[in-house]
Amino acid sequence: MKLMEQKILTEGQVLPGNILKVGSFLNQQLDIEFLHEVGKEIARLYKNTGVTKVITIEASGIPLATLAALELGVPAVIVKKHASANLSHDVYSAEIASFTHKNTYTAVVAKEYLNKNDSVLIVDDFLAVGNAIRGLQKILNDAGATLAGCAIAIEKGFQHGGDELRAEGIRVESLAIVDEMKDGEITFRP
Amino acid sequence: MKLMEQKILTEGQVLPGNILKVGSFLNQQLDIEFLHEVGKEIARLYKNTGVTKVITIEASGIPLATLAALELGVPAVIVKKHASANLSHDVYSAEIASFTHKNTYTAVVAKEYLNKNDSVLIVDDFLAVGNAIRGLQKILNDAGATLAGCAIAIEKGFQHGGDELRAEGIRVESLAIVDEMKDGEITFRP
Repeated sequence: MKLMEQKILTEGQVLPGNILKVGSFLNQQLDIEFLHEVGKEIARLYKNTGVTKVITIEASGIPLATLAALELGVPAVIVKKHASANLSHDVYSAEIASFTHKNTYTAVVAKEYLNKNDSVLIVDDFLAVGNAIRGLQKILNDAGATLAGCAIAIEKGFQHGGDELRAEGIRVESLAIVDEMKDGEITFRP
Repeated sequence: MKLMEQKILTEGQVLPGNILKVGSFLNQQLDIEFLHEVGKEIARLYKNTGVTKVITIEASGIPLATLAALELGVPAVIVKKHASANLSHDVYSAEIASFTHKNTYTAVVAKEYLNKNDSVLIVDDFLAVGNAIRGLQKILNDAGATLAGCAIAIEKGFQHGGDELRAEGIRVESLAIVDEMKDGEITFRP
């Protein structure tokens, strides 16, 4: 999706530590018209594949998951990063190491929102080493649901999580793949 | 909004500790068509009031903030619950006590996403004692921005946060106000 690459080149900032800051449109401030176009693009890529639900882990993938679900016409399921008073038993869970935050958390979702008839599309803002997707994969396996594929706004190609998933036959659609960020210069995978 | 009251009566569950569980449509699983209608209703209530941005604190208000922003045609700003590598300086912040989670967190947002010309609509899934809104009010004050009002999916009227805000002249539009939850029976404010 050239639109995403253009947006990254226009508004993205490369910060120390290979951090790509896209807060102006993707995850701190939402450029809602742009994200709506991204949601439509995700729906176009996955229409007619039998997707019954969109899933994401809170929090920064939620806007895109919401808009993709809207355009696909299916419910979205938000996996929580922590158990809470009304989400503590009858849950599927997975331990996930956060590359960004250097910690590990337990992702949880109530069993009632996933079942073996579901074909589920994972939506997220970033894909780097792929830990979040591996956690969601485990949750979908536990539920007996099918993984329809992944739709990612920005893949960090140089961290290879997406390549490993594709090598296993999983469909991964990233709207932009950053292969290198060197001296502030961004190189996209052709 | 009768639609929200009907939805709560059909799908909501009253759990011990005055918890109203609405995970099936509002904050764990998203009934996207229903939430889209809610977003349209919020836009109808606040159109022609000069709103320039929608704001919410992560995470459970994000879907509704996204859809309200979509229908209003303005950007949304997502206030984070914790500082991170790319959000640590040049921020507005507020200490907020969470009634649900029994803890206190520091809400942060980059200064660049709010300014004195903004008229901002706060969107959230729940309003109880109003701590989150007070924190956002402080952040908007620090930014010199104007608070246009609040749009809330479900207000817990018996916790009086909404009443206090209205008494101060702040516009609070709640799509359902629960005045009592007794023995599993829900009473709405007329």
